[in-house]
Formats: sequence, C-alpha cells, structure tokens
Amino acid sequence: MASKIIYGFHAVMAALDHHPQLILNLYTQTLLEGARIKAVIAKAQAQQIHIETVAATKLDKLTNSAHHQGIAAKMRVMPAKDETAIVNWLKQTDKSPLLLLLEGIQDVQNLGACLRSAQAFGVDWVVIPKANSAPISPIVSKIACGADQIIPIVEVANMVRFIQNIQALGVWVVGTSSAASGVLKDAKLKRSLALVMGQEHKGLKHLTLETCDEIAKIPLIGAIDSLNVSVATGICLYEVIRTRSL
Amino acid sequence: MASKIIYGFHAVMAALDHHPQLILNLYTQTLLEGARIKAVIAKAQAQQIHIETVAATKLDKLTNSAHHQGIAAKMRVMPAKDETAIVNWLKQTDKSPLLLLLEGIQDVQNLGACLRSAQAFGVDWVVIPKANSAPISPIVSKIACGADQIIPIVEVANMVRFIQNIQALGVWVVGTSSAASGVLKDAKLKRSLALVMGQEHKGLKHLTLETCDEIAKIPLIGAIDSLNVSVATGICLYEVIRTRSL
Repeated sequence: MASKIIYGFHAVMAALDHHPQLILNLYTQTLLEGARIKAVIAKAQAQQIHIETVAATKLDKLTNSAHHQGIAAKMRVMPAKDETAIVNWLKQTDKSPLLLLLEGIQDVQNLGACLRSAQAFGVDWVVIPKANSAPISPIVSKIACGADQIIPIVEVANMVRFIQNIQALGVWVVGTSSAASGVLKDAKLKRSLALVMGQEHKGLKHLTLETCDEIAKIPLIGAIDSLNVSVATGICLYEVIRTRSL
Repeated sequence: MASKIIYGFHAVMAALDHHPQLILNLYTQTLLEGARIKAVIAKAQAQQIHIETVAATKLDKLTNSAHHQGIAAKMRVMPAKDETAIVNWLKQTDKSPLLLLLEGIQDVQNLGACLRSAQAFGVDWVVIPKANSAPISPIVSKIACGADQIIPIVEVANMVRFIQNIQALGVWVVGTSSAASGVLKDAKLKRSLALVMGQEHKGLKHLTLETCDEIAKIPLIGAIDSLNVSVATGICLYEVIRTRSL
C-alpha cells in the first residue's frame, strides 16, 4: 500500500478534519505540550488513530525537514484523480465552477501559497501539468496549510488539450498576463470559470494564451510591472469572489 | 564609506534606473552574454559606471549566494530616512498618501514579495520595525525585484507611537485581521491611508490592533481561514487601488 508523510500543524489538522480514514499513523514529538499539539492529539484520539510519540531527531528524519513543528502523519495514498473526474463533475454540478490552472509553478513556496489561497477562496479543482511543475510534496502541503488535503488537485499531460476539453463543456477560460489589454475586473468572472496562471518568470506559454477565451491583467501603477505569482493568484481569486458576490 | 552588494537582474536594473549615482561598481559574470546582461551593461556604460567582469565563483562569494543571475553591484549606502522624513512629506504632499506598515515579517520571501507588490501598486512609504523584522538584505532586494531601490523604507523603533504620530496628521490607519468583523472593501480606503499587516503566524499585536482606526478582513469562504501574508498584502493593496479608481 502506497503511503506518504505529511507534517506541520495545519497540514495534519486538515488531514484529521477531511480524510481521517487515510491516516495510518500519527507522530508527535516527545515532551511537546503546546495547545496546538494537544488539540491534534485530542482529535486523533477521538477518531481512534494510532499515535506514536517519537524523538525530535526521528521526526526530522521521517519528514526530511526541521520544520515539522513536532507533528507528522503517515497517510495512505489514494489513486490520483484524473481529468475524467473533473469532466464528470462539470457535467453534473449545479454550482458555478471555479477551476485554477497553474501552468508550471517552479517554487514550492509559490505553489504552497497558491493552494492555500485556492482553498481559502473556494476553488473547486486545481490543475497542474504532469511535467514542469513543482510536485505536491510534503513541504508544499505544509506551506499550503494542508489545502492539498481538502481541494482535489489533478495533474494533466497536456494543459492546452485540457483547456479545450473544458471549453467544450461551457467553461470560460481566463488567462492572466501583464501584457493583456483588458483588466481582470472586466473579465467574465461570473460564468463557469477556469483561471490560468503562468510560470514565475516566463508567464503563460504562447499556445496556452492563444487557447484561452480571454486574457486579463491586474492593473499596476508602479515602475515594477509584475507581481509574484502567488500574490497574483490570490488577487485574481479575490477579484472572482468579489465580482461574484455583487 | 558604507557600501552594500545587491544582485539579480531586476534589483540591479532598478538601481540603474533610480539611483545610478549610488552605484560604485557593477559586476558581470565572465562569458555570460544573454539579452538581459547586455541591457544592463549598455545602461551602465551610458552612465559611465565602472564594470568589472568576474568569474562565477567570485560572484558567488561577493553575493554570498548562487542566485545572482551573473550580475551584482556595489552600492553606496545613504543614511537611512527616518520617521521625520515621512512626517515632513505628509505635511506637504498634495496626493492621497498610501503607506504600508509591515509589523514584523519574518520570512525573506514574504518581505520581498510585499515590497514588490508595494512598489507595483504605488505605495509611497513602507515602514518596518527596527527589531523583530527580517532586514532589507540583498536576498530580499532580489526577491523584491529591486523595489527597495525605488520605494523609501523606514525603520521605526515603536510602531504604535508611529501610528499615533501619523494619525495626528490625518492619516486613517487600517489594520488587517482575519478576526475583524468588517471587510476590506467597506473600509475608508480613499482617505490618506496607512495599511498595517501583521506577522506571519501571530498577526498584528494586540496594542497595534487597538491603536488602528479600523480593522478589516479579506472575506474568505474556504475551510482555510487565513492567507500567506504577502498574498494578503497584495490583495489589500489591490483593493485600495481598485476602490480609489472608482
């Protein structure tokens, strides 16, 4: 049975809240007695999850990190959802879908912050490419505050083909680029929507830009004419939610 | 004469554009011939700045980093501006001021991304505490795309006293907290404004919250009820600029 290690308070708490049945083992650090650790232990005990108290050095080794905050969990890995799951969901959902397509984010901090924002703003699905993206690793999960435990993330082999497939189902695809002429708040954000964000340095690929229904920018007024990709993603999602609430 | 090293394409380019007179020496990596390096060299030559071509290993050592992108500059360090400079500016400016107060950001990536957004959204001054903040280091400057070369950044000894001083000059001070009852877009963002962002994990200090004129939150709809601080800062600045453009 495939398993993986997650760590950090928020990531483990998200697993306890959303997929307790997938937790094989919970590890807490010896002699750690903070309120947060106690909350995790209480929640795990209530769900009869096996808890092991281990030395800090063992946790360091288990998580391959010194930033585990004294807590980790071994999780069962479920078969990953694929593109078909999104297509099926789109066909039957009665809500206005919001998909976030991250085309090749390289930095784990950026990817983690994007996932955190995606969950906080109620994104239904996150889509990343199979190649040329930072993977959803334990460090990404920790930075994401466990968003990857809550929101389904699908890897696709071909982002352009995926975009065409969801367009055929009526999803409006908005790409972002600092070179766009239109601004985000004027885009058709109330429709069934997929928002596409590009790579840190290069932005969206040429073919991806061409495939989108609309390209929009975040209006900036300073000498610096672009934002960090996780900041830009947060602003775009904020604008979608703001517009939809009008 | 005090000097410092800055590195990375955007940081050096910002210095060339905004403070060429402070550049003592420009360093470029031997055999590097990309379009970006050429643009930097041309700009430096036009301003008769001394250029030294050095080995990659020397640049690594000079910048204490492997992420210098083949380019660095030695800059003269000017006496830092202090609180008095902001007060004097507030007394004579005829624009609607926008100040960003970052109360103790710990992570260099977060601080750099906040400065980048601040410049991109036209913030007039950034204020950080003298103690308990990541310093404006070369790595922060690089992550900020050189925003620290463009936007004045002032360190204050006592953030609460600074807030009281600018309030006395008519600046409306809006703190941010996920526990606030009001949402950001309803805050008085069109006034002379200082936006206050808290530390990554703890948020704003109790006394700072009490001193602010208004506390506002970014409305979130997911299970995750907070954002990365640089994402939150970007969204707040976006909302200020959006509101002011209405």
